Amino acid sequence: MGGDVMRLRNVKNKQEIMEHSSHLVGDPFFYKGRWHELFGNHHPIYLEIGMGKGQFLIEQAKRNPSINYLGIEKFDSVVARALQKIPEDLPNLMVIRANARDIEEMFFHEISLLYLNFSDPWPKKRHQLRRLTSCVFLEKYDSIFVGEKRIIQRTDNQGLFEYSLISFSQNGYILEEVSLDLHQSDSFDGVMTEFEEKFTEAGFPIYRVVAVKKGVN
Amino acid sequence: MGGDVMRLRNVKNKQEIMEHSSHLVGDPFFYKGRWHELFGNHHPIYLEIGMGKGQFLIEQAKRNPSINYLGIEKFDSVVARALQKIPEDLPNLMVIRANARDIEEMFFHEISLLYLNFSDPWPKKRHQLRRLTSCVFLEKYDSIFVGEKRIIQRTDNQGLFEYSLISFSQNGYILEEVSLDLHQSDSFDGVMTEFEEKFTEAGFPIYRVVAVKKGVN
Repeated sequence: MGGDVMRLRNVKNKQEIMEHSSHLVGDPFFYKGRWHELFGNHHPIYLEIGMGKGQFLIEQAKRNPSINYLGIEKFDSVVARALQKIPEDLPNLMVIRANARDIEEMFFHEISLLYLNFSDPWPKKRHQLRRLTSCVFLEKYDSIFVGEKRIIQRTDNQGLFEYSLISFSQNGYILEEVSLDLHQSDSFDGVMTEFEEKFTEAGFPIYRVVAVKKGVN
Repeated sequence: MGGDVMRLRNVKNKQEIMEHSSHLVGDPFFYKGRWHELFGNHHPIYLEIGMGKGQFLIEQAKRNPSINYLGIEKFDSVVARALQKIPEDLPNLMVIRANARDIEEMFFHEISLLYLNFSDPWPKKRHQLRRLTSCVFLEKYDSIFVGEKRIIQRTDNQGLFEYSLISFSQNGYILEEVSLDLHQSDSFDGVMTEFEEKFTEAGFPIYRVVAVKKGVN
């Protein structure tokens, strides 16, 4: 969520919000290998790293009741904002307060799709391994997926997008779709993040890639 | 060269120009497997398909005397224009009047680098296999390369670029470099095609990808 997060104000009662929400996962490490128990079904699980205030996942969860959605967010204030926005009667969306660095400790061959929406671009070259599409993270993701590995990335950041295309390609992923101006393309479904909405209104293009890695787990 | 070619006027004395030029290859099929004989040395050979009026290759040939350059162009009038522009004392640049469809009959494991500059985008989906980065052409290129297969594509056409990234990726190529705005990036060396110059002056971005396929010939 990059710049958007940086501008987010502190939410004073964030601890209280988190303690009373039925959509926050208490201990994500506990569910490693058995997330279906949390949801009470065996529907596919789609994960977003950096869910921000949750607009994207909330809309997806409403539209697709037979998909389970998990959102990871590391900032307490952002988590609290997301929890406030999630309707009570949306059982297929849960929020995890955690750092994506620890993702291998949270999932084991159970994620069907990974969303990376407007991730921090980490523009300095010396920070490039912190980007969520660096080889460091792509390797971490290997063990979270069940079946083929499928990542959908959206960003407005040209440098991050160029880097991601190269990194996907160099780490065994095939590019299945590429859009250099998502909102002008046929594959746009209308679901946007908060950040995306603002950025699009300002007339900037949104980049999107669907990257897939086949083969055994 | 897409739109640029379409606007090119007929060159009335094109046959005369071609007959008298020392830079036109008479019979390209004759040199299959022995292009080094034409150049009289064993320097690497770089090929451009759709060389247009030749500005890009002429500048490259001037800058890099120890590389041999070959340009393919299918339109007689365009070939004639290119031949008129090539300086007499540029022995490392030769022009081939031919259709890229026949490329397998002209080269056998002797091209080190392939340039595709502003190729016809063939925007209709039913024509997509005519694009020079379609699987049809990528398969044809396999036997022309010596060592690793390396293709550098530039285009101003968003649809063609999106298609090419996917096609490279799905046909065994790794993306080594991607630029979504070449002239603002560090890897720009200043050498432009005629088309690129006009397009850049108009303020549009140029896309560029370096795609590489490793492995045996």
